[in-house]
Amino acid sequence: MLNIQGREPWASQVIARVNARLEKFFDERLAHARTLSPRAPELVSSIAELTMRGGKRLRPLVIYAGFRACTPLVGERDLPSIVTLGAAIELLQSYLLIQDDWMDNDEQRRGGPSTFAAMQRQFKDPQLGASLTILASDVAMGYAIELLHETRFPSGRRGEALSAFQDMHLEVVFGQQLDLLAHEDVTLTQHLKTGSYTMRGPMRLGALLADASDEQLQALMRFAQPLGIAFQLRDDVLGTFGDPAVTGKPVGHDLREGKYTALIAEARNLMSAEDRARLLTVLGDRSAALPEVQAVIRSLETSGARARVEATLAARLSEARRALMAASCLVPEGVGMLLELLDRTALRER
Amino acid sequence: MLNIQGREPWASQVIARVNARLEKFFDERLAHARTLSPRAPELVSSIAELTMRGGKRLRPLVIYAGFRACTPLVGERDLPSIVTLGAAIELLQSYLLIQDDWMDNDEQRRGGPSTFAAMQRQFKDPQLGASLTILASDVAMGYAIELLHETRFPSGRRGEALSAFQDMHLEVVFGQQLDLLAHEDVTLTQHLKTGSYTMRGPMRLGALLADASDEQLQALMRFAQPLGIAFQLRDDVLGTFGDPAVTGKPVGHDLREGKYTALIAEARNLMSAEDRARLLTVLGDRSAALPEVQAVIRSLETSGARARVEATLAARLSEARRALMAASCLVPEGVGMLLELLDRTALRER
Repeated sequence: MLNIQGREPWASQVIARVNARLEKFFDERLAHARTLSPRAPELVSSIAELTMRGGKRLRPLVIYAGFRACTPLVGERDLPSIVTLGAAIELLQSYLLIQDDWMDNDEQRRGGPSTFAAMQRQFKDPQLGASLTILASDVAMGYAIELLHETRFPSGRRGEALSAFQDMHLEVVFGQQLDLLAHEDVTLTQHLKTGSYTMRGPMRLGALLADASDEQLQALMRFAQPLGIAFQLRDDVLGTFGDPAVTGKPVGHDLREGKYTALIAEARNLMSAEDRARLLTVLGDRSAALPEVQAVIRSLETSGARARVEATLAARLSEARRALMAASCLVPEGVGMLLELLDRTALRER
Repeated sequence: MLNIQGREPWASQVIARVNARLEKFFDERLAHARTLSPRAPELVSSIAELTMRGGKRLRPLVIYAGFRACTPLVGERDLPSIVTLGAAIELLQSYLLIQDDWMDNDEQRRGGPSTFAAMQRQFKDPQLGASLTILASDVAMGYAIELLHETRFPSGRRGEALSAFQDMHLEVVFGQQLDLLAHEDVTLTQHLKTGSYTMRGPMRLGALLADASDEQLQALMRFAQPLGIAFQLRDDVLGTFGDPAVTGKPVGHDLREGKYTALIAEARNLMSAEDRARLLTVLGDRSAALPEVQAVIRSLETSGARARVEATLAARLSEARRALMAASCLVPEGVGMLLELLDRTALRER
């Protein structure tokens, strides 16, 4: 039984359990794939490799903390459910990353080649490589649903939980659509694309596993909503100002990718005409020269765009913190864990 | 209540109900999408358009006939479940078609532009068009799962049914992988890619809805297995020898696409060296001249490749028929419906 009084910090314990569950899951599915066709194991391995190579396992932590914020007790049967659901959401994440890297033409992910880059290298033919990449994402999504179905929810909450998982899935997809279309309302994109499956979704699912009251669910959503936005804003800051050695992303990654981040949205109003012209030249140009990219990064700083984003980030974090503090219906131990997650979001360097 | 004694043939009644369910579902989801983002309705509409534009609705018929073969009664609550599950599998089909058309670069589907072609036309940018196509397929898959979750299975069979749906989904994906890799074992590709979600999967799901016995399930699988292969073989024959005005596919479609069909597998052993050389030149060449394509089609006929495929098709159909006739555990009314589906498979022209 998982207990925060144990010697290991709770987060490390949850992560270790989720990793063990994923390892076992992939072993089983690899064995099953071998019975289906001689080539099926290749797709399964590509997903296993990406999933096990890294990842912060933040979402399973959100599930666990959300659970603990709604009930003081972790029962014998609860922990396996939390861990299985955590593994499900990690596979949803793999499905999204595999597609995202293909859509953004990203070659690197979690310190190794993206699934897309690996497939291109193996098959040489771009259309075939892209097609097999999408098939790998299909399998990852199928596996996420299998693990979701294996999760034991409290009787009477199962339907609600399955809906919550699908709502989360579809919000991410609609958020990704806005992202690709460079939709002007960056906050809406962030709310749908990141907030949904990073914070609101897993927190709701953890609460449903704990058979939470409506009051508890609402309190958690008031916390998760601004925290999800903060998480994405931190991502935007790191994608432009982060240390490449820590983030694993090259200098100016988001700029070269043409990502329409909160930084860009702020800069449009704050920059001089000259700086704005240079920004528009560099944005989305993968072959832009490094000095040009560095000049744009500096202008994002000097224009005050970075400061505006950091200020919004701080405001969202304190909004989340206030919401949590005001919720007397939540269990103190779990609240402590949620605050730890808030700090992780605020301070993360990758 | 649906009754085969009604004036309308049972198949028309099932199709009308499934279409009505899909219409209602899309109306609801479109309304929901409008609350999520100003662009989300576009993705939903693209799926609705493809799904409602045509389709034989064969799989819902297989579910219904499979159900009726296992129980003499259709209860008040059974029909909505059959119809909801039928709608779910039609959305799984839309998800697969959207991806398939992108992978094969097919511009036409069900008498209109494929989702891929429509996205390309709207957005001009090939990478963006492809990305939005995949997002549409993601939403279709999410919707399929939502409808699956709404289906009421008999108590105690729900877990088995959810697994059956996922097994079906993953077998198709692994079959598509083999197809893309032009895997030499064409029968395995057909078994996984088509047999699974055209016959075995929906029949198993229909049987589970009827709370079938193990004996009934096994009997249905002995019927569905060869029938699924026959369905794909008919597809292969129509893809090369079908009437373009009826199939909606241009002359030599499968050849130009480079599809490794049962015809090609047979032709490799039967053709003269000269004919084989020409086949290999035309296979996968989208810009091959019509006289060349027509010459290859003739040689597929004169070499005996077509006759071999037709013979295998006939053998599979009689294998399926024998299996059904030998199954005394099945309900005669449902068996009659299954035989109707077998005839549809054998005689279909598109």
